Amino acid sequence: MNPIAADPSHPRYASLLRRHLIEEAAAEGLLAGSALIAHGRGEAYDYLLGERTTPSAAKATAEAYARLRAAQRPVISVNGNTVALAGRDLLHLADALSCRVEVNIFYRTQARMDGLIAKLEGWCAEDNLRVEVLGRRTDGRIPGLEGPRAQCEAEGIASADVILVPLEDGDRCEALVAMGKTVLVVDLNPLSRTARTATVTLVDEVGRVAEALRKHANEGLALEPNPGWDNLASLQASLDDIAAHMEHRFV
Amino acid sequence: MNPIAADPSHPRYASLLRRHLIEEAAAEGLLAGSALIAHGRGEAYDYLLGERTTPSAAKATAEAYARLRAAQRPVISVNGNTVALAGRDLLHLADALSCRVEVNIFYRTQARMDGLIAKLEGWCAEDNLRVEVLGRRTDGRIPGLEGPRAQCEAEGIASADVILVPLEDGDRCEALVAMGKTVLVVDLNPLSRTARTATVTLVDEVGRVAEALRKHANEGLALEPNPGWDNLASLQASLDDIAAHMEHRFV
Repeated sequence: MNPIAADPSHPRYASLLRRHLIEEAAAEGLLAGSALIAHGRGEAYDYLLGERTTPSAAKATAEAYARLRAAQRPVISVNGNTVALAGRDLLHLADALSCRVEVNIFYRTQARMDGLIAKLEGWCAEDNLRVEVLGRRTDGRIPGLEGPRAQCEAEGIASADVILVPLEDGDRCEALVAMGKTVLVVDLNPLSRTARTATVTLVDEVGRVAEALRKHANEGLALEPNPGWDNLASLQASLDDIAAHMEHRFV
Repeated sequence: MNPIAADPSHPRYASLLRRHLIEEAAAEGLLAGSALIAHGRGEAYDYLLGERTTPSAAKATAEAYARLRAAQRPVISVNGNTVALAGRDLLHLADALSCRVEVNIFYRTQARMDGLIAKLEGWCAEDNLRVEVLGRRTDGRIPGLEGPRAQCEAEGIASADVILVPLEDGDRCEALVAMGKTVLVVDLNPLSRTARTATVTLVDEVGRVAEALRKHANEGLALEPNPGWDNLASLQASLDDIAAHMEHRFV
């Protein structure tokens, strides 16, 4: 089914549209096979969350926005799925907050790196955004990781104080936290290692998160970081939302 | 990561191995992109279930085995993911119970149909199994569906009295039930339309289900169908298992 042709009043229209974005990006050669599988996991968790932004997720997103806004060297690290689902909105956010954007993917190939950077730069040109898109250089290192997964840009992730890194894997999230960075992640599974390790975890779908962040930036919201942010309490609230949504009774 | 090279004592080894099987099948051209996304959804639901066969799922599998065993014209309908994750075990089951196996895929292409049938027939030859693998003909129809999704074989699905159809979509499950068939499905989401529509729903991972069914058949278990089978009560038990597994406390 082509969801574009489907009825926008379909209760799962937004989810089908996102699936279509991922399938398109895969057809363009921008995603590894494992990225499609990861998207499916996200679909399932979002389904259990009710495919909506919960109040606790909205609070976490506001906190992430405040941290990016207050940062000295904020970086938004994007992988293939993030580009496909949220790339354009994140570029608008980056433009408004003077963030750099760095393409950083798990299974690094030159073709995918080039394709993702070209995609982002194309949107910048179309929307007249001034955002530095990094990822070509590999002159930075994330200590504690091995091989290509340790690679990043010296001027980007390596020297960032605050990093928004949606859809990150557990090892890399831990390594970035160990570097002393403020790590903001988007993860629909509140039980994942990434979710439990990050400074601020947004248990929400990345497209909805990016829309909300862009809106905050467009409105010029002057939010300040909360130094007493309790990430585990926020995760617990998300988990409770999911559990409540599962309390369906058949019998 | 290549899970084959990973430590088999890794708590999620089996899940990583299954992901690898799916990625291999995708690389062989046997799967549509949406199949990878569907696998990801399955991974997430299985994670929430604890990646184990629950007691309620084991009961549903035993009931499905009894129904297949008692059938006049049993058919096992397999799609790409089922072949990749459970094909070989299902062929052993089919051999033991004199079931036909029919390849029936959602996004039908000749190349994928040929590839999947060849894969199954290759296993039959290697393991010396006598199973009729159907799917080449499209001389049957499932009323209520449109286009290629209505196609099946007259000698297979169309005339089956009992059909085991793992990983089926909701529309097709409803249409098969409407034909008066006993429909046995494997679906890790107990809330899905497929799960709620089927005669017997196995809320379990298809690879574990196929292993269990093969084992029952090898042991020649003489189980009889339970005419009072309460599928909604079985789904409720599965949902309760998932909810219990989500009762993690962070704070």
